[in-house]
Amino acid sequence: MNERDYIARCLAPLATSPAARGLCDDAAVWQPPLGRALVFTHDVLAAGVHFLPDDPPADVAWKLLAVNLSDLAAMAATPAGVLLGLAGPADAGWRAGFAEGLGRALAQFGVALWGGDTVSGLAAPVLGLTAIGWVEPGRALGRAGARPGDALWVSGSIGDAGLGLAVAQGRAPFDKALLNRFRRPTPRLALGAALGGVASAGLDVSDGLLIDAQRLAAASGVMLAIDLAAVPLGRPAAGLDDLLARVTAGDDYELLFTAPADVDVVALAGKTPVTRIGTVAAGTGLSLSLRDAPVALPARLGWEHQ
Amino acid sequence: MNERDYIARCLAPLATSPAARGLCDDAAVWQPPLGRALVFTHDVLAAGVHFLPDDPPADVAWKLLAVNLSDLAAMAATPAGVLLGLAGPADAGWRAGFAEGLGRALAQFGVALWGGDTVSGLAAPVLGLTAIGWVEPGRALGRAGARPGDALWVSGSIGDAGLGLAVAQGRAPFDKALLNRFRRPTPRLALGAALGGVASAGLDVSDGLLIDAQRLAAASGVMLAIDLAAVPLGRPAAGLDDLLARVTAGDDYELLFTAPADVDVVALAGKTPVTRIGTVAAGTGLSLSLRDAPVALPARLGWEHQ
Repeated sequence: MNERDYIARCLAPLATSPAARGLCDDAAVWQPPLGRALVFTHDVLAAGVHFLPDDPPADVAWKLLAVNLSDLAAMAATPAGVLLGLAGPADAGWRAGFAEGLGRALAQFGVALWGGDTVSGLAAPVLGLTAIGWVEPGRALGRAGARPGDALWVSGSIGDAGLGLAVAQGRAPFDKALLNRFRRPTPRLALGAALGGVASAGLDVSDGLLIDAQRLAAASGVMLAIDLAAVPLGRPAAGLDDLLARVTAGDDYELLFTAPADVDVVALAGKTPVTRIGTVAAGTGLSLSLRDAPVALPARLGWEHQ
Repeated sequence: MNERDYIARCLAPLATSPAARGLCDDAAVWQPPLGRALVFTHDVLAAGVHFLPDDPPADVAWKLLAVNLSDLAAMAATPAGVLLGLAGPADAGWRAGFAEGLGRALAQFGVALWGGDTVSGLAAPVLGLTAIGWVEPGRALGRAGARPGDALWVSGSIGDAGLGLAVAQGRAPFDKALLNRFRRPTPRLALGAALGGVASAGLDVSDGLLIDAQRLAAASGVMLAIDLAAVPLGRPAAGLDDLLARVTAGDDYELLFTAPADVDVVALAGKTPVTRIGTVAAGTGLSLSLRDAPVALPARLGWEHQ
């Protein structure tokens, strides 16, 4: 199947928005909602770097969309459309599975494919996705803005995706739920939208709770004091080393955010589980404790992209 | 240099717009001009497919930006910002040259880097760029809309980039001007913006004048009658075969468009050279002639992406 046929048969059915113009023009055209600020993100997933070469293509498509929508959620934005850059081998089965998975993920999150580009002739897939969303002006969330006295919160549970990676790599027994946390993360779109204009700072946990917390602390010019005992885990940890492995594993795609102490974050979050895990203090970096006993920072806080 | 240092040293200086938030947040935030429609395009360039592995990285960056801005121009849009997806080897020299070239190209076309993603660990570069622009509502140009009786126009000159590719591949003697047409195309932004709401249909010539003309004809449901003798060439053609090679070579990034016969396109185009090369007629496909003598369609009309 050449590019034209692939686009016509597999991708055009996903381009349900008028903005996509049926994928027949050189670009998408969209009339944005009046008076909104627009939010743009672009993340790349490469085989062998971000996913395993034999991961199911539908899962890769899901993750590609989810990690980008998670960036929108972290900015308190509501997604509107995406552009896809699909480069890889001319493997018809892989490509069809990818398009089918992308279609399901787009439908799940209520987003449409607006356009993009496809290329064959590469040895392994390199996938880019641009997600476009909107937010009320002044309500976009950023990493700077946390103030001493604010509470530190995280959504969902931390470390399950790291356990899922071990399953995917055959280092741990098969566990569908954990594998799905790694392969099919859920962007916290509803929570993100609710936090706009209320939370003082936020980001999504992609590289590890601790390293992402450190980035938020650095951008805000504050210290984050985290009670490791409060960090919500999907599965109980077997001691401190295991707990530290969870909070440095990454791929969680939960939201880590700060809010003034008097905000009723649980009510604001509605159906999304949220847990208070610490406090913003004056200073720099992270301060860890476990039920009031100080814990030394591990040497590795998460994934540092080399 | 790891990803963080590369972003901080080489890419952050290109992120001059407030929308980029210093590349410090999860996404860009932009307040679009009031009442405008927005235009989005994403094109991928891969080493070995779209450019030669030893092409200078600054030229690759230029072309990556130019081909995307050319898509905006083809839709009559004015560019506002771009997101970059840079995946490739951790080759510090190549990456620095790429960033420097991208910076020069962004400055040349008055566009800012808003965000994106970088990945190392790949054998060869795969580059994606999303360009975001705006157009007055209802003035976006598309491929459908040409009507019998309209005139068919093309900007600049055709076939030079194909000659430049031969130079780059060592199949033709060194010629800086031709090489630049291949490696550093100029998106026709001013012309594109002027054509919005006036031209009836248009696209940019990326795969070959004839194949792109055929696409415009198909989208509009018309026939395009092209006088090959009128096609503007940068260098004289040595006979019909050579002429046919030029009009099927591609990589021109000129605008091919139709307009009602009574529109003064030359005046509208201002400083951009434009040439009338044919007429829109009822029917389908292309009809070629050379000074009133019919010419058979060549078997290959341009690049078909396999």
